[in-house]
Amino acid sequence: MIMITSTQNATIKDVKKLLMKKYRQKEGRMLIEGKNLLDAAKAHNLLESSFHLEPHPDYPKGTVLSDHVMRHLTKTKTPPRDAGVAKIPASQTAGKRVLILENVQDPGNVGTLLRSALAFGFDTVVFDESADPYAQKVMRSTQGAIFSLNILFDTVPGFKSAYPGHTLVGAHLDRDAKTYELPADPLALVLGNEGHGLKDSTIRSLDRTVYVQIQNIDSLNVAIAGSIIMHAFSGEKPLFG
Amino acid sequence: MIMITSTQNATIKDVKKLLMKKYRQKEGRMLIEGKNLLDAAKAHNLLESSFHLEPHPDYPKGTVLSDHVMRHLTKTKTPPRDAGVAKIPASQTAGKRVLILENVQDPGNVGTLLRSALAFGFDTVVFDESADPYAQKVMRSTQGAIFSLNILFDTVPGFKSAYPGHTLVGAHLDRDAKTYELPADPLALVLGNEGHGLKDSTIRSLDRTVYVQIQNIDSLNVAIAGSIIMHAFSGEKPLFG
Repeated sequence: MIMITSTQNATIKDVKKLLMKKYRQKEGRMLIEGKNLLDAAKAHNLLESSFHLEPHPDYPKGTVLSDHVMRHLTKTKTPPRDAGVAKIPASQTAGKRVLILENVQDPGNVGTLLRSALAFGFDTVVFDESADPYAQKVMRSTQGAIFSLNILFDTVPGFKSAYPGHTLVGAHLDRDAKTYELPADPLALVLGNEGHGLKDSTIRSLDRTVYVQIQNIDSLNVAIAGSIIMHAFSGEKPLFG
Repeated sequence: MIMITSTQNATIKDVKKLLMKKYRQKEGRMLIEGKNLLDAAKAHNLLESSFHLEPHPDYPKGTVLSDHVMRHLTKTKTPPRDAGVAKIPASQTAGKRVLILENVQDPGNVGTLLRSALAFGFDTVVFDESADPYAQKVMRSTQGAIFSLNILFDTVPGFKSAYPGHTLVGAHLDRDAKTYELPADPLALVLGNEGHGLKDSTIRSLDRTVYVQIQNIDSLNVAIAGSIIMHAFSGEKPLFG
Protein backbone atom coordinates (compact mmCIF):
# COMPACT_ATOMS: atom_id res chain seq x y z
CA MET A 1 0.00 0.00 0.00
CA ILE A 2 1.43 3.32 -1.12
CA MET A 3 0.41 6.48 0.69
CA ILE A 4 1.31 9.94 -0.53
CA THR A 5 1.46 12.76 1.99
CA SER A 6 3.47 15.34 0.05
CA THR A 7 2.15 17.68 -2.62
CA GLN A 8 5.67 17.62 -4.08
CA ASN A 9 5.37 13.95 -5.00
CA ALA A 10 6.21 13.41 -8.70
CA THR A 11 2.99 11.49 -9.46
CA ILE A 12 0.87 14.19 -7.86
CA LYS A 13 2.67 16.92 -9.80
CA ASP A 14 2.21 14.94 -13.01
CA VAL A 15 -1.49 14.22 -12.46
CA LYS A 16 -2.32 17.73 -11.29
CA LYS A 17 -1.22 19.06 -14.69
CA LEU A 18 -4.31 17.36 -16.11
CA LEU A 19 -6.43 20.16 -14.63
CA MET A 20 -5.07 22.16 -17.59
CA LYS A 21 -6.60 21.61 -21.03
CA LYS A 22 -3.18 21.85 -22.70
CA TYR A 23 -1.88 18.81 -20.81
CA ARG A 24 -5.10 16.85 -21.25
CA GLN A 25 -4.83 17.32 -25.00
CA LYS A 26 -1.11 16.53 -25.07
CA GLU A 27 -1.41 13.38 -22.95
CA GLY A 28 -4.89 12.18 -23.88
CA ARG A 29 -5.69 11.71 -20.20
CA MET A 30 -7.95 13.46 -17.71
CA LEU A 31 -8.45 13.73 -13.97
CA ILE A 32 -11.77 12.38 -12.72
CA GLU A 33 -13.40 12.73 -9.30
CA GLY A 34 -15.81 10.58 -7.34
CA LYS A 35 -16.62 6.88 -7.17
CA ASN A 36 -19.29 7.10 -9.88
CA LEU A 37 -16.84 8.46 -12.44
CA LEU A 38 -14.17 5.93 -11.41
CA ASP A 39 -16.67 3.11 -11.88
CA ALA A 40 -17.76 4.48 -15.26
CA ALA A 41 -14.15 4.84 -16.46
CA LYS A 42 -13.33 1.32 -15.24
CA ALA A 43 -16.39 -0.12 -16.99
CA HIS A 44 -15.16 1.45 -20.24
CA ASN A 45 -11.60 0.14 -19.72
CA LEU A 46 -10.32 3.70 -19.55
CA LEU A 47 -9.12 3.91 -15.96
CA GLU A 48 -5.34 4.20 -15.57
CA SER A 49 -4.89 4.83 -11.86
CA SER A 50 -6.89 5.84 -8.82
CA PHE A 51 -6.43 7.84 -5.61
CA HIS A 52 -8.38 7.49 -2.36
CA LEU A 53 -8.61 9.05 1.08
CA GLU A 54 -8.96 5.51 2.44
CA PRO A 55 -8.12 2.16 0.81
CA HIS A 56 -11.07 1.12 -1.38
CA PRO A 57 -11.88 -2.60 -1.84
CA ASP A 58 -13.00 -2.02 -5.46
CA TYR A 59 -9.65 -0.40 -6.26
CA PRO A 60 -6.95 -2.54 -4.59
CA LYS A 61 -4.19 -0.97 -6.72
CA GLY A 62 -5.26 2.53 -5.74
CA THR A 63 -2.94 4.98 -4.06
CA VAL A 64 -3.98 6.50 -0.74
CA LEU A 65 -3.59 10.26 -0.38
CA SER A 66 -3.71 12.41 2.71
CA ASP A 67 -6.66 14.80 2.87
CA HIS A 68 -4.26 17.67 2.22
CA VAL A 69 -2.81 16.07 -0.93
CA MET A 70 -6.25 15.13 -2.30
CA ARG A 71 -7.37 18.73 -1.80
CA HIS A 72 -4.24 19.98 -3.57
CA LEU A 73 -4.58 17.50 -6.44
CA THR A 74 -8.23 18.25 -7.15
CA LYS A 75 -8.02 21.95 -6.25
CA THR A 76 -11.12 21.71 -4.10
CA LYS A 77 -12.00 22.87 -0.61
CA THR A 78 -13.97 19.72 0.11
CA PRO A 79 -11.92 16.99 -1.57
CA PRO A 80 -13.58 13.94 -3.18
CA ARG A 81 -13.03 10.62 -1.38
CA ASP A 82 -11.91 9.04 -4.65
CA ALA A 83 -10.27 10.34 -7.82
CA GLY A 84 -8.35 8.91 -10.73
CA VAL A 85 -6.75 9.29 -14.11
CA ALA A 86 -8.67 8.07 -17.15
CA LYS A 87 -7.76 7.89 -20.82
CA ILE A 88 -9.70 10.32 -22.99
CA PRO A 89 -11.72 8.04 -25.29
CA ALA A 90 -10.89 8.12 -29.01
CA SER A 91 -13.42 9.89 -31.25
CA GLN A 92 -15.55 7.69 -33.49
CA THR A 93 -17.51 8.44 -36.65
CA ALA A 94 -20.56 10.59 -35.83
CA GLY A 95 -23.76 8.62 -35.21
CA LYS A 96 -27.24 9.47 -36.41
CA ARG A 97 -28.24 11.85 -33.61
CA VAL A 98 -25.66 14.51 -33.02
CA LEU A 99 -25.61 17.49 -30.65
CA ILE A 100 -23.32 20.36 -31.68
CA LEU A 101 -22.34 22.93 -29.04
CA GLU A 102 -21.21 26.16 -30.64
CA ASN A 103 -19.51 28.37 -28.09
CA VAL A 104 -21.50 27.11 -25.08
CA GLN A 105 -19.29 28.40 -22.29
CA ASP A 106 -20.78 27.55 -18.91
CA PRO A 107 -19.34 24.23 -17.62
CA GLY A 108 -22.58 23.42 -15.80
CA ASN A 109 -24.60 23.92 -18.98
CA VAL A 110 -22.22 21.73 -20.98
CA GLY A 111 -22.23 18.96 -18.36
CA THR A 112 -26.02 19.02 -18.08
CA LEU A 113 -26.40 18.93 -21.86
CA LEU A 114 -24.13 15.87 -22.09
CA ARG A 115 -26.25 14.11 -19.47
CA SER A 116 -29.50 15.04 -21.28
CA ALA A 117 -28.05 14.00 -24.66
CA LEU A 118 -27.37 10.52 -23.34
CA ALA A 119 -30.75 10.34 -21.60
CA PHE A 120 -32.62 11.21 -24.80
CA GLY A 121 -30.77 8.95 -27.22
CA PHE A 122 -28.24 11.31 -28.80
CA ASP A 123 -25.02 9.40 -29.51
CA THR A 124 -22.46 12.06 -30.49
CA VAL A 125 -21.59 15.52 -29.17
CA VAL A 126 -19.48 17.90 -31.25
CA PHE A 127 -17.57 20.67 -29.48
CA ASP A 128 -17.08 23.89 -31.42
CA GLU A 129 -15.34 26.52 -29.26
CA SER A 130 -17.23 25.42 -26.14
CA ALA A 131 -16.15 24.60 -22.58
CA ASP A 132 -13.83 21.58 -22.70
CA PRO A 133 -15.84 18.40 -21.97
CA TYR A 134 -12.94 16.98 -19.96
CA ALA A 135 -12.66 20.00 -17.66
CA GLN A 136 -13.22 19.31 -13.96
CA LYS A 137 -16.45 21.32 -13.63
CA VAL A 138 -17.97 19.78 -16.75
CA MET A 139 -17.11 16.25 -15.65
CA ARG A 140 -18.79 16.89 -12.30
CA SER A 141 -22.05 17.86 -14.02
CA THR A 142 -22.05 14.96 -16.47
CA GLN A 143 -22.22 12.30 -13.77
CA GLY A 144 -20.31 9.86 -15.97
CA ALA A 145 -22.40 10.37 -19.13
CA ILE A 146 -19.22 11.45 -20.92
CA PHE A 147 -17.90 7.87 -21.18
CA SER A 148 -21.01 6.69 -23.02
CA LEU A 149 -21.00 9.43 -25.63
CA ASN A 150 -18.88 9.86 -28.74
CA ILE A 151 -17.11 13.23 -28.38
CA LEU A 152 -15.82 15.09 -31.45
CA PHE A 153 -14.05 18.42 -31.85
CA ASP A 154 -14.99 20.24 -35.02
CA THR A 155 -16.57 23.45 -36.30
CA VAL A 156 -20.11 23.63 -37.64
CA PRO A 157 -18.85 24.07 -41.28
CA GLY A 158 -16.32 21.28 -40.70
CA PHE A 159 -19.04 18.93 -39.47
CA LYS A 160 -21.37 19.86 -42.32
CA SER A 161 -18.74 19.11 -44.91
CA ALA A 162 -17.74 15.80 -43.25
CA TYR A 163 -21.37 14.72 -42.77
CA PRO A 164 -23.41 16.22 -45.63
CA GLY A 165 -26.22 13.70 -45.06
CA HIS A 166 -27.07 15.03 -41.59
CA THR A 167 -29.93 17.52 -41.44
CA LEU A 168 -28.59 20.56 -39.58
CA VAL A 169 -31.23 21.83 -37.11
CA GLY A 170 -30.48 25.02 -35.17
CA ALA A 171 -32.14 26.18 -31.97
CA HIS A 172 -33.05 29.66 -33.10
CA LEU A 173 -36.15 31.81 -33.00
CA ASP A 174 -37.78 31.59 -36.42
CA ARG A 175 -41.12 33.35 -36.58
CA ASP A 176 -42.00 31.48 -39.76
CA ALA A 177 -41.85 28.15 -37.95
CA LYS A 178 -45.44 27.03 -37.54
CA THR A 179 -45.25 23.28 -37.74
CA TYR A 180 -44.39 20.57 -35.34
CA GLU A 181 -42.66 18.20 -37.70
CA LEU A 182 -39.60 16.37 -36.48
CA PRO A 183 -36.73 16.12 -38.98
CA ALA A 184 -35.68 12.53 -39.77
CA ASP A 185 -32.34 10.98 -38.82
CA PRO A 186 -29.49 11.48 -39.37
CA LEU A 187 -29.52 14.93 -37.85
CA ALA A 188 -27.45 17.37 -35.87
CA LEU A 189 -28.97 19.82 -33.39
CA VAL A 190 -26.88 22.98 -32.99
CA LEU A 191 -27.05 25.06 -29.80
CA GLY A 192 -25.36 28.45 -29.51
CA ASN A 193 -23.74 30.69 -26.93
CA GLU A 194 -25.58 31.58 -23.70
CA GLY A 195 -25.60 35.30 -24.43
CA HIS A 196 -25.44 35.60 -28.20
CA GLY A 197 -27.03 32.44 -29.60
CA LEU A 198 -25.84 30.99 -32.90
CA LYS A 199 -23.37 32.73 -35.20
CA ASP A 200 -24.90 34.39 -38.28
CA SER A 201 -22.87 32.13 -40.57
CA THR A 202 -24.23 29.09 -38.73
CA ILE A 203 -27.81 30.33 -39.00
CA ARG A 204 -27.35 30.70 -42.78
CA SER A 205 -26.05 27.14 -43.05
CA LEU A 206 -28.99 25.51 -41.23
CA ASP A 207 -31.40 23.13 -42.98
CA ARG A 208 -34.08 23.65 -40.34
CA THR A 209 -34.72 25.75 -37.25
CA VAL A 210 -36.44 24.81 -34.03
CA TYR A 211 -37.57 26.80 -31.04
CA VAL A 212 -39.39 26.35 -27.76
CA GLN A 213 -42.29 28.73 -27.24
CA ILE A 214 -42.06 30.77 -24.07
CA GLN A 215 -43.98 33.55 -22.32
CA ASN A 216 -42.95 36.53 -20.19
CA ILE A 217 -39.19 36.27 -20.69
CA ASP A 218 -36.78 36.67 -23.58
CA SER A 219 -34.96 33.38 -23.51
CA LEU A 220 -34.52 30.04 -21.80
CA ASN A 221 -31.29 28.73 -20.33
CA VAL A 222 -29.50 26.89 -23.19
CA ALA A 223 -29.34 23.61 -21.25
CA ILE A 224 -33.10 23.79 -20.67
CA ALA A 225 -33.97 24.66 -24.27
CA GLY A 226 -31.58 22.03 -25.64
CA SER A 227 -32.93 19.35 -23.31
CA ILE A 228 -36.57 20.13 -24.15
CA ILE A 229 -35.74 19.83 -27.85
CA MET A 230 -33.75 16.59 -27.43
CA HIS A 231 -36.62 15.21 -25.35
CA ALA A 232 -39.01 16.06 -28.21
CA PHE A 233 -36.80 14.02 -30.57
CA SER A 234 -37.20 11.02 -28.25
CA GLY A 235 -40.91 11.05 -29.17
CA GLU A 236 -41.89 10.54 -25.55
CA LYS A 237 -44.08 12.77 -23.43
CA PRO A 238 -43.90 13.03 -19.65
CA LEU A 239 -46.06 10.28 -18.14
CA PHE A 240 -48.66 11.12 -15.52
CA GLY A 241 -49.82 8.38 -13.14
CA MET B 1 -22.88 63.03 -7.00
CA ILE B 2 -21.78 60.83 -4.13
CA MET B 3 -18.83 58.52 -4.61
CA ILE B 4 -17.83 55.91 -2.06
CA THR B 5 -14.24 54.73 -1.99
CA SER B 6 -14.09 53.11 1.45
CA THR B 7 -15.33 49.65 2.36
CA GLN B 8 -15.87 51.04 5.88
CA ASN B 9 -18.62 53.38 4.69
CA ALA B 10 -21.79 52.90 6.78
CA THR B 11 -24.06 52.41 3.75
CA ILE B 12 -21.76 49.77 2.30
CA LYS B 13 -21.58 47.93 5.62
CA ASP B 14 -25.36 48.05 5.89
CA VAL B 15 -26.02 46.85 2.35
CA LYS B 16 -23.39 44.12 2.45
CA LYS B 17 -25.28 42.46 5.31
CA LEU B 18 -27.96 41.64 2.75
CA LEU B 19 -25.70 38.89 1.39
CA MET B 20 -26.82 37.00 4.51
CA LYS B 21 -30.25 35.38 4.55
CA LYS B 22 -30.81 36.38 8.17
CA TYR B 23 -30.60 40.09 7.32
CA ARG B 24 -32.63 39.75 4.12
CA GLN B 25 -35.44 38.18 6.16
CA LYS B 26 -35.16 40.74 8.96
CA GLU B 27 -35.11 43.76 6.64
CA GLY B 28 -37.22 42.48 3.73
CA ARG B 29 -34.59 43.76 1.31
CA MET B 30 -32.06 42.11 -0.99
CA LEU B 31 -28.94 43.00 -2.92
CA ILE B 32 -29.28 42.72 -6.70
CA GLU B 33 -26.59 42.82 -9.38
CA GLY B 34 -26.60 43.89 -13.00
CA LYS B 35 -28.53 46.38 -15.10
CA ASN B 36 -31.20 43.81 -16.04
CA LEU B 37 -32.12 43.15 -12.43
CA LEU B 38 -32.05 46.87 -11.59
CA ASP B 39 -34.43 47.54 -14.48
CA ALA B 40 -36.71 44.70 -13.41
CA ALA B 41 -36.80 45.90 -9.79
CA LYS B 42 -37.47 49.48 -10.93
CA ALA B 43 -40.30 48.33 -13.22
CA HIS B 44 -41.91 46.62 -10.22
CA ASN B 45 -41.45 49.70 -7.99
CA LEU B 46 -39.19 47.70 -5.71
CA LEU B 47 -35.86 49.47 -6.19
CA GLU B 48 -34.63 51.40 -3.13
CA SER B 49 -31.15 52.48 -4.14
CA SER B 50 -28.50 51.74 -6.73
CA PHE B 51 -24.70 51.60 -7.02
CA HIS B 52 -22.60 52.00 -10.14
CA LEU B 53 -18.97 51.92 -11.26
CA GLU B 54 -19.78 54.93 -13.43
CA PRO B 55 -22.72 57.36 -13.28
CA HIS B 56 -25.66 55.81 -15.14
CA PRO B 57 -28.15 58.09 -16.96
CA ASP B 58 -31.07 55.74 -16.10
CA TYR B 59 -30.22 55.99 -12.41
CA PRO B 60 -29.42 59.65 -11.69
CA LYS B 61 -29.79 59.15 -7.93
CA GLY B 62 -27.36 56.23 -7.94
CA THR B 63 -24.20 56.19 -5.86
CA VAL B 64 -20.87 55.68 -7.59
CA LEU B 65 -18.53 53.12 -6.04
CA SER B 66 -14.86 52.52 -6.70
CA ASP B 67 -14.08 49.18 -8.32
CA HIS B 68 -12.63 48.01 -5.02
CA VAL B 69 -15.77 48.87 -3.04
CA MET B 70 -18.09 47.29 -5.64
CA ARG B 71 -16.03 44.11 -5.46
CA HIS B 72 -16.20 44.16 -1.66
CA LEU B 73 -19.94 44.86 -1.60
CA THR B 74 -20.87 42.09 -4.02
CA LYS B 75 -18.15 39.68 -2.87
CA THR B 76 -17.12 39.00 -6.46
CA LYS B 77 -13.79 38.89 -8.28
CA THR B 78 -15.26 40.53 -11.36
CA PRO B 79 -17.67 43.11 -9.94
CA PRO B 80 -20.92 44.00 -11.73
CA ARG B 81 -21.06 47.49 -13.26
CA ASP B 82 -24.38 48.12 -11.50
CA ALA B 83 -25.99 46.84 -8.32
CA GLY B 84 -28.76 47.91 -6.00
CA VAL B 85 -31.04 47.25 -3.08
CA ALA B 86 -34.57 46.07 -3.79
CA LYS B 87 -37.53 45.36 -1.53
CA ILE B 88 -38.43 41.68 -1.30
CA PRO B 89 -41.93 41.55 -2.79
CA ALA B 90 -44.80 40.59 -0.47
CA SER B 91 -46.22 37.08 -0.92
CA GLN B 92 -49.66 36.81 -2.52
CA THR B 93 -52.27 34.04 -2.51
CA ALA B 94 -51.07 31.09 -4.59
CA GLY B 95 -52.23 31.12 -8.21
CA LYS B 96 -53.46 28.20 -10.25
CA ARG B 97 -50.11 26.85 -11.43
CA VAL B 98 -47.69 26.39 -8.59
CA LEU B 99 -44.17 24.99 -8.48
CA ILE B 100 -43.05 23.63 -5.10
CA LEU B 101 -39.32 23.14 -4.49
CA GLU B 102 -38.71 20.67 -1.68
CA ASN B 103 -35.09 20.80 -0.57
CA VAL B 104 -33.68 21.81 -3.98
CA GLN B 105 -30.25 23.00 -2.88
CA ASP B 106 -28.20 24.07 -5.89
CA PRO B 107 -28.61 27.85 -6.46
CA GLY B 108 -28.16 27.41 -10.23
CA ASN B 109 -30.94 24.82 -10.35
CA VAL B 110 -33.27 27.04 -8.31
CA GLY B 111 -32.56 30.09 -10.48
CA THR B 112 -33.06 28.14 -13.69
CA LEU B 113 -36.31 26.65 -12.41
CA LEU B 114 -37.65 30.13 -11.55
CA ARG B 115 -36.84 31.30 -15.07
CA SER B 116 -38.50 28.21 -16.63
CA ALA B 117 -41.54 28.54 -14.34
CA LEU B 118 -42.15 32.06 -15.62
CA ALA B 119 -41.49 31.03 -19.23
CA PHE B 120 -44.05 28.21 -19.06
CA GLY B 121 -46.87 30.05 -17.32
CA PHE B 122 -46.42 29.02 -13.70
CA ASP B 123 -47.38 31.92 -11.43
CA THR B 124 -46.27 30.89 -7.94
CA VAL B 125 -43.18 29.17 -6.52
CA VAL B 126 -43.22 27.71 -3.00
CA PHE B 127 -39.91 27.23 -1.18
CA ASP B 128 -39.74 24.31 1.24
CA GLU B 129 -36.20 23.99 2.70
CA SER B 130 -34.59 24.97 -0.61
CA ALA B 131 -31.87 27.45 -1.56
CA ASP B 132 -33.09 30.96 -0.71
CA PRO B 133 -34.56 32.60 -3.84
CA TYR B 134 -33.06 35.96 -2.84
CA ALA B 135 -29.51 34.61 -2.48
CA GLN B 136 -26.94 36.18 -4.78
CA LYS B 137 -26.26 33.04 -6.87
CA VAL B 138 -29.96 32.29 -7.35
CA MET B 139 -30.73 35.87 -8.39
CA ARG B 140 -27.95 35.71 -10.99
CA SER B 141 -29.51 32.61 -12.58
CA THR B 142 -33.08 33.94 -12.58
CA GLN B 143 -32.28 36.86 -14.87
CA GLY B 144 -35.00 38.96 -13.24
CA ALA B 145 -37.75 36.31 -13.40
CA ILE B 146 -38.02 36.53 -9.62
CA PHE B 147 -39.86 39.89 -9.73
CA SER B 148 -42.62 38.48 -11.92
CA LEU B 149 -43.35 35.43 -9.78
CA ASN B 150 -45.26 35.10 -6.53
CA ILE B 151 -42.84 33.58 -3.99
CA LEU B 152 -44.13 31.73 -0.93
CA PHE B 153 -42.36 29.96 1.93
CA ASP B 154 -44.20 26.91 3.19
CA THR B 155 -43.88 23.14 3.61
CA VAL B 156 -45.61 20.65 1.34
CA PRO B 157 -48.12 19.66 4.08
CA GLY B 158 -48.62 23.35 4.91
CA PHE B 159 -49.38 24.17 1.29
CA LYS B 160 -51.70 21.18 0.94
CA SER B 161 -53.72 22.22 3.94
CA ALA B 162 -53.88 25.88 2.85
CA TYR B 163 -54.80 24.97 -0.75
CA PRO B 164 -56.76 21.69 -0.65
CA GLY B 165 -58.19 22.34 -4.12
CA HIS B 166 -54.79 22.14 -5.84
CA THR B 167 -53.92 18.76 -7.38
CA LEU B 168 -50.52 17.81 -5.97
CA VAL B 169 -48.34 16.34 -8.74
CA GLY B 170 -44.91 14.98 -7.80
CA ALA B 171 -41.97 14.37 -10.14
CA HIS B 172 -41.23 10.82 -9.12
CA LEU B 173 -40.62 7.57 -10.95
CA ASP B 174 -43.89 5.65 -10.89
CA ARG B 175 -43.74 2.49 -12.95
CA ASP B 176 -47.54 2.29 -12.97
CA ALA B 177 -47.77 5.58 -14.84
CA LYS B 178 -48.74 4.70 -18.37
CA THR B 179 -50.89 7.59 -19.49
CA TYR B 180 -50.19 10.99 -20.84
CA GLU B 181 -53.04 12.86 -19.22
CA LEU B 182 -52.39 16.34 -17.90
CA PRO B 183 -53.98 17.15 -14.55
CA ALA B 184 -56.33 20.15 -14.64
CA ASP B 185 -55.70 23.47 -12.87
CA PRO B 186 -55.31 24.40 -10.09
CA LEU B 187 -52.25 22.26 -9.52
CA ALA B 188 -48.90 22.22 -7.77
CA LEU B 189 -45.87 20.44 -9.22
CA VAL B 190 -43.46 19.26 -6.51
CA LEU B 191 -39.76 18.73 -7.28
CA GLY B 192 -37.39 17.11 -4.77
CA ASN B 193 -33.76 17.18 -3.72
CA GLU B 194 -30.98 16.69 -6.30
CA GLY B 195 -29.62 13.56 -4.65
CA HIS B 196 -32.56 12.07 -2.78
CA GLY B 197 -35.70 13.13 -4.64
CA LEU B 198 -38.96 13.69 -2.77
CA LYS B 199 -39.45 12.84 0.90
CA ASP B 200 -41.40 9.64 1.56
CA SER B 201 -44.10 11.59 3.40
CA THR B 202 -44.45 13.89 0.38
CA ILE B 203 -44.73 10.94 -2.00
CA ARG B 204 -47.56 9.52 0.13
CA SER B 205 -49.42 12.84 0.03
CA LEU B 206 -49.35 13.21 -3.79
CA ASP B 207 -52.51 13.13 -5.87
CA ARG B 208 -50.59 12.26 -9.05
CA THR B 209 -47.08 11.43 -10.14
CA VAL B 210 -45.24 12.40 -13.30
CA TYR B 211 -41.94 11.37 -14.79
CA VAL B 212 -39.86 11.93 -17.87
CA GLN B 213 -38.73 8.77 -19.63
CA ILE B 214 -34.99 8.49 -20.07
CA GLN B 215 -32.45 5.97 -21.41
CA ASN B 216 -28.93 5.01 -20.38
CA ILE B 217 -28.73 7.00 -17.15
CA ASP B 218 -30.43 6.92 -13.77
CA SER B 219 -31.75 10.42 -13.50
CA LEU B 220 -32.01 13.83 -15.07
CA ASN B 221 -30.85 17.09 -13.53
CA VAL B 222 -33.81 18.41 -11.48
CA ALA B 223 -33.92 21.72 -13.38
CA ILE B 224 -34.09 19.80 -16.68
CA ALA B 225 -36.77 17.35 -15.51
CA GLY B 226 -38.83 20.15 -13.92
CA SER B 227 -38.58 22.34 -17.00
CA ILE B 228 -39.59 19.52 -19.37
CA ILE B 229 -42.64 18.84 -17.20
CA MET B 230 -43.60 22.53 -16.92
CA HIS B 231 -43.19 22.83 -20.67
CA ALA B 232 -45.57 19.86 -21.11
CA PHE B 233 -48.16 21.75 -19.01
CA SER B 234 -47.91 24.67 -21.43
CA GLY B 235 -49.38 22.36 -24.08
CA GLU B 236 -46.84 23.53 -26.65
CA LYS B 237 -44.37 21.43 -28.56
CA PRO B 238 -41.08 22.71 -29.96
CA LEU B 239 -41.72 24.23 -33.37
CA PHE B 240 -39.61 23.20 -36.36
CA GLY B 241 -39.35 25.54 -39.32
